[in-house]
Amino acid sequence: MPSLSRKEFLKLSALAGTGALLLPHSLLAADKPDAAKKVRVGFIGVGLRGIVHVEEIAKRNDTEIVAFADPNPLMMAATQKALAKYNRPAAKEFGNGNEDYRNLLKLKNLDAVIIATPWEWHKVQALEAVRAGKIVGLEVGGALTLQECWDYVKASEETGVPIMAMENVSYRRDVMAVLNMVRKGMFGTLVHGRGGYQHDLRGVLFNDGKTPYNSGAEFGEKGFSEAHWRTDHYVKRNAELYPTHGLGPVALMMDVNRGNRLLKLSSFSTKALGLHQYVAEKGGTDHPNAQVKFREGDIVTTQILCENGETILLTHDTSLPRPYNLGFRVQGTDGIWEEYGAGSLSTGNIYFEKLMKHSHKWDNTEKWLTENDHPLWARYAKEAEGAGHGGMDFFVINSFIECIKRKVDFPMDVYDLATWYAITPLSEQSIQEGKVVDIPDFTNGKYKNRKPVFALAAEY
Amino acid sequence: MPSLSRKEFLKLSALAGTGALLLPHSLLAADKPDAAKKVRVGFIGVGLRGIVHVEEIAKRNDTEIVAFADPNPLMMAATQKALAKYNRPAAKEFGNGNEDYRNLLKLKNLDAVIIATPWEWHKVQALEAVRAGKIVGLEVGGALTLQECWDYVKASEETGVPIMAMENVSYRRDVMAVLNMVRKGMFGTLVHGRGGYQHDLRGVLFNDGKTPYNSGAEFGEKGFSEAHWRTDHYVKRNAELYPTHGLGPVALMMDVNRGNRLLKLSSFSTKALGLHQYVAEKGGTDHPNAQVKFREGDIVTTQILCENGETILLTHDTSLPRPYNLGFRVQGTDGIWEEYGAGSLSTGNIYFEKLMKHSHKWDNTEKWLTENDHPLWARYAKEAEGAGHGGMDFFVINSFIECIKRKVDFPMDVYDLATWYAITPLSEQSIQEGKVVDIPDFTNGKYKNRKPVFALAAEY
Repeated sequence: MPSLSRKEFLKLSALAGTGALLLPHSLLAADKPDAAKKVRVGFIGVGLRGIVHVEEIAKRNDTEIVAFADPNPLMMAATQKALAKYNRPAAKEFGNGNEDYRNLLKLKNLDAVIIATPWEWHKVQALEAVRAGKIVGLEVGGALTLQECWDYVKASEETGVPIMAMENVSYRRDVMAVLNMVRKGMFGTLVHGRGGYQHDLRGVLFNDGKTPYNSGAEFGEKGFSEAHWRTDHYVKRNAELYPTHGLGPVALMMDVNRGNRLLKLSSFSTKALGLHQYVAEKGGTDHPNAQVKFREGDIVTTQILCENGETILLTHDTSLPRPYNLGFRVQGTDGIWEEYGAGSLSTGNIYFEKLMKHSHKWDNTEKWLTENDHPLWARYAKEAEGAGHGGMDFFVINSFIECIKRKVDFPMDVYDLATWYAITPLSEQSIQEGKVVDIPDFTNGKYKNRKPVFALAAEY
Repeated sequence: MPSLSRKEFLKLSALAGTGALLLPHSLLAADKPDAAKKVRVGFIGVGLRGIVHVEEIAKRNDTEIVAFADPNPLMMAATQKALAKYNRPAAKEFGNGNEDYRNLLKLKNLDAVIIATPWEWHKVQALEAVRAGKIVGLEVGGALTLQECWDYVKASEETGVPIMAMENVSYRRDVMAVLNMVRKGMFGTLVHGRGGYQHDLRGVLFNDGKTPYNSGAEFGEKGFSEAHWRTDHYVKRNAELYPTHGLGPVALMMDVNRGNRLLKLSSFSTKALGLHQYVAEKGGTDHPNAQVKFREGDIVTTQILCENGETILLTHDTSLPRPYNLGFRVQGTDGIWEEYGAGSLSTGNIYFEKLMKHSHKWDNTEKWLTENDHPLWARYAKEAEGAGHGGMDFFVINSFIECIKRKVDFPMDVYDLATWYAITPLSEQSIQEGKVVDIPDFTNGKYKNRKPVFALAAEY
């Protein structure tokens, strides 16, 4: 199925005989994995993010790790070393510059690729991968242009090759417990949600070119890891640069693209002071980077309206000193949840008028989130232990592999990816033109009949 | 001065000899109170809000309480009774219908009036008061139209009679401690602020017509107190209906109208479910009010951009079950404060990278807010004890009276009032037209040279 030709795909679509475009992936869905068959995975990008996925894949007995593509020999070696810890044979290497991933995509013995590269590479690599018949797991980010989002959708629809949005925060334990409570009806009808990326990235956006965190004031050519590429977006753009960690979990609770959709947004940006101040303090006011003018406002807020009448508020806050907090809030006609921590079950407040013995007073979240632990967490807590980002990374990889094995739709698919990624260029336009902008329906009407699937199966 | 005629005022303005329009109030400023002279105060509206102000005024030995105007005989009697507790003579009564306040305004022995009436009366009563030469303390709310805001400004400028915005939350102890810390520079340069009115008003918006709180499903003609008038705004409008509690404190920290100004806003609204659900649960689905269609969305968020590059986010959230929390956040280049409580010093998180011994971890607010208690709170804590709304109401009345005695500008003046009130009609327009709207400069350029005055004097 992953290597289905376009011709075969069109034939299957015709057989389906409906106006709605059904991916062959769905048509062939069996929902029973072939126990003997291992999913053969390649990696494009094995930097500090990719290596985490490699390890999660390596822990599983239903996978083969076939190849790595990355132009950085140090990271290539480090990732092979990580792989060896799991008694896996070394992966085939494609390290001959930035374009060598193309040769990786030519491999016949490859079902899927996980792409964890700088944002500016996502489009070309994902599109080439699906055109080569490789299922894609694409790391999160924001699109550079709105067209990029349409390109993902069109490539996937035309080839029948699915793309999964690797949004790990959707699997955070507190977030999934809240999703569980939403589905149990404890919040009543949802009306409002919040999330964001409130994470002091200054020590990531600048370093000494060798040590990734908190080591200097360099970026771009002289920077290492994210400082090498991410910071440039802060120079050139003013936008909600990283929307998916905040939006994804809330969009899933609100059934966006599955009976609901995002209609329009408005973004406002503050002035940009934080990064300059950081460079001046870390590198001195004479440092060349103290002359750089950063366009990205320190705080970018984005209001989104959904077709079913909910609103979502996103906050991008990465240039100032602050404790990590994605700032989730989920609010319905019967309850409200807010959190101020980094995913701990106890760093939040919750209120359910009808379920509590007191009125107008918060409960700490811990008891409620524990009692309503999502079945997937209850099932996999042991496996998730030690996985990246507090266990979330186990789940995102687990879903990726289990869906491929079962030939079922990804829980966060190309339409979700396009919708979430689109917030970046749309927010950029909203800020620049000072207006409210429409959000396209990337499903082209299919959202009306698509049903929720995220975290509804017993195994993924 | 309060009874200065327009002619006298224009003469004084001409003497000032500058382009800027200076109020005679300022010109005559002595900043020394006349100890012998008592401020003679009348009240328009002695409902459940007005009575609190009456008591605060009655506690002071520098005031005379001259008269009450209110069409409700029950509230008139209750307020006289409250007054008697302080061994004050009964106030003269103007209770002959809704228009009898006009006769109160004709009294010669009256320096000032405090207006605490339904929002739809604010404009006509405040304008008539200043035209009658009475200094006005106007309760907070939101304007019905943008023109209303201009009318306050023009009436005050033309008569020279000042109007104070009675925004009590500006004096909340935690809010003032944060203001103090902002002024000490602990937050660095401010970039972002949040506030709102997140207060479950369902039990206020509906009652049984006799008991003010949580007693039924009636409103309008059959409702009592706020249910009598406030709920109608939720039927007819969809807007940030009550902006000042959230905006006022943040605007003061950001020197809005004093070196800074609000430029534009964008508001989004959710669907309206909460009030209907409340009526149906409280009065039954057969209750006539279960047929009412409420326009006001359950959650209205408003993004505001300031000229100096800060943004402010307001949330109006009064139709759903939730604990009270105005949701303040103050964030600068060096620190961030967020709170989730009802004004207690301990229900919040705070972070100052340079002042704390730990990195990227919240401190509870209590220690910081206590150590940085605002001098006015340190001075007046005892007097504020027992005053309305945790002491805030002492301060707002204290400022009103002390400024009148000293003939100095109010710390929250007619320009602040107009600016804050304007958020309501502008947010309404933004939601209705789906666009970003400009916020007028009610100071007509004077904001550039006006200096901060709020809570900078030792006594008020």
